[in-house]
Amino acid sequence: MISMNKEIILNELINISILISSKSTLNDLLDTVLKKARDITNSDAGSLYLKEGNRLIFLITQNDTLKDINKNFKSFPIYIDKHSIAGYAAFTGDIIRIDDVYNIPKEYPFSFNIEFDQNNNYKSTSMLTIPMKDNEKEVIGVLQLINAKDSEEKIVTYSNEIEKIIESFASIAAVAIKNVQLKDSIKRAHLETIYRLSVAAEYKDTDTGTHIKRMSRYSEVIARNMGFDSKYCELLLYASPLHDIGKLGIPDAILTKPAKLDPDEWDMMKKHTTMGYEILKDSSEHLIKFAASIALSHHERYDGNGYPNRLKGENIPVEGRIVALADVFDALATKRPYKEPWPLEKILDLIQVERDKQFDSNVIEAFFKGLDEILDIQSRLSD
Amino acid sequence: MISMNKEIILNELINISILISSKSTLNDLLDTVLKKARDITNSDAGSLYLKEGNRLIFLITQNDTLKDINKNFKSFPIYIDKHSIAGYAAFTGDIIRIDDVYNIPKEYPFSFNIEFDQNNNYKSTSMLTIPMKDNEKEVIGVLQLINAKDSEEKIVTYSNEIEKIIESFASIAAVAIKNVQLKDSIKRAHLETIYRLSVAAEYKDTDTGTHIKRMSRYSEVIARNMGFDSKYCELLLYASPLHDIGKLGIPDAILTKPAKLDPDEWDMMKKHTTMGYEILKDSSEHLIKFAASIALSHHERYDGNGYPNRLKGENIPVEGRIVALADVFDALATKRPYKEPWPLEKILDLIQVERDKQFDSNVIEAFFKGLDEILDIQSRLSD
Repeated sequence: MISMNKEIILNELINISILISSKSTLNDLLDTVLKKARDITNSDAGSLYLKEGNRLIFLITQNDTLKDINKNFKSFPIYIDKHSIAGYAAFTGDIIRIDDVYNIPKEYPFSFNIEFDQNNNYKSTSMLTIPMKDNEKEVIGVLQLINAKDSEEKIVTYSNEIEKIIESFASIAAVAIKNVQLKDSIKRAHLETIYRLSVAAEYKDTDTGTHIKRMSRYSEVIARNMGFDSKYCELLLYASPLHDIGKLGIPDAILTKPAKLDPDEWDMMKKHTTMGYEILKDSSEHLIKFAASIALSHHERYDGNGYPNRLKGENIPVEGRIVALADVFDALATKRPYKEPWPLEKILDLIQVERDKQFDSNVIEAFFKGLDEILDIQSRLSD
Repeated sequence: MISMNKEIILNELINISILISSKSTLNDLLDTVLKKARDITNSDAGSLYLKEGNRLIFLITQNDTLKDINKNFKSFPIYIDKHSIAGYAAFTGDIIRIDDVYNIPKEYPFSFNIEFDQNNNYKSTSMLTIPMKDNEKEVIGVLQLINAKDSEEKIVTYSNEIEKIIESFASIAAVAIKNVQLKDSIKRAHLETIYRLSVAAEYKDTDTGTHIKRMSRYSEVIARNMGFDSKYCELLLYASPLHDIGKLGIPDAILTKPAKLDPDEWDMMKKHTTMGYEILKDSSEHLIKFAASIALSHHERYDGNGYPNRLKGENIPVEGRIVALADVFDALATKRPYKEPWPLEKILDLIQVERDKQFDSNVIEAFFKGLDEILDIQSRLSD
């Protein structure tokens, strides 16, 4: 089949290359890479590993015979050495083609791990294991394909031609994976910088920063449950930590006063909203402008009695309405030097009471829809 | 030629796809895209435009006959409408193949702009203009190829087959360009966030932030002239704005005191180095850890009389030695409320005098090597 339609397959490979390069999240990309590798080779099953230090981290498996395998399959690392098949491929950089994994010659350094077959009542036979090499010929991971099938679904061996095509494919995949990893790492650095600086700015380094981490994640959960797309939710996640950045402009004496603020001091304190807006507003970056809007509006109230602009209802930007609830929820749920945490029930009651008063009812609904996830974040990021 | 070796060309296209996807800077990527497009089609010349709003921005041109063209050629925008050839291709999404640009039928909506040929004494004949479409079929730019040549260097027309291959190529290029643009935009957002927050943190929003922008760029120039690779130079550019972040921990009364600090206050002020280190040190991100090192070491002196650790010579991390000079140069060269800027000559004399005292002589040498560039940055980013 391959030899007859080589031109078609090469053309298809170019389309796959475009598709793969367009993927923006690592999970989506890895799923597509494995799926397309199986399509090209007509494989019943396959797994994908990425290199991390001196090990291969198992990430996904797909199996047409065992449909639900990915959900139940446990992740385990494989050392990059000559003992396992995937390890050997990563170690040497060679493609390993095996016609029957149960008949690997004894003199070979690697052996087949029968655990998976035994646990899942599966029978692996032919196997093609391909190191994914980037443009600089460095191995970044391993693709493992199992049980090639012919047009009648009979298990066959992998051909020489398939091996060559999948080698090109693996390089395309490697470069795409590296690109997404690089982008993710810049994004992580960005997020971490925002967190660190926000925390430092707000609390003069006395807080652990978990408040800011929690409230930004709560905000993201609420936005998602309101139906916003992933781009908006991510924007909110990144921008909301900056909501109190204007506190940089508030004198230390007010910011850290151990007693209650007098009315003048309180008026000054309220200015952190407009000061934050001033710091961030004239940025050319969308994320920073968005953060400016949050800084300005996160103390407005749905009934119009908030500050600084006494905006009412839908006149308050939705990002401000979301952060308002996320911020208050976390403040109430957290121990502070001057107060114990409120019990969850009491907080939820207050939120309900403040429906259409302090908070937007749409935001409240999304908050309750996402409550399990919010409580999960709370317990993972506790002080 | 094409029909005989279609398989070879498709294979080559896959290799080109891997090469293009590996490019990390936009300039390098665009150069490679245009070069490979000309290779595939054996074109004497070509240009590349990217879409920006409703216009095409001319970015590069290559011309084998006119070798030095790119340096002299002026950039101009083309509206995305039916009047120009590139505009038409972007407007309609169609590839436009013209056998002789001087014989375009009058009924066609677009016409050939003869200005380039006239100004450069060049003769354009055959032309292939390809809209670059991303995975969502959106046009992100236009490739324009001019004067296909046969194996005897005679100018010929573009073939049907070439048109199909270049269409695939243009999609590969479009996705790669979009990826680099996306990565660049995240990087820009990151850099801008650091600048904005550093400025806000350090100066309580009274400074314009140009000091931080200038000194980080000076640092980058110095590092480059010391022979560090582009990765290190970029790291320094991004991390150095955080050098004074520890000032967040210094009481307002000291930070903004209009008179000279007394010895106790001065001791407190010096702590901004260790406080900055404490804020940044335990990050999982390399960039932030690197910034921690700069925060800690940028007031050390080469002769061991600096603070906080009185480190000497090579015991001071090189990033601290670089930022020390960049920071002092900009402070002296800038007007402050309490002082006029020093004349350039006087600053350069001081730097020479401080060789092996305050500053590392290797850093000083790199500073002088890059002085033209530093002065250029200074004039572009003046207060």
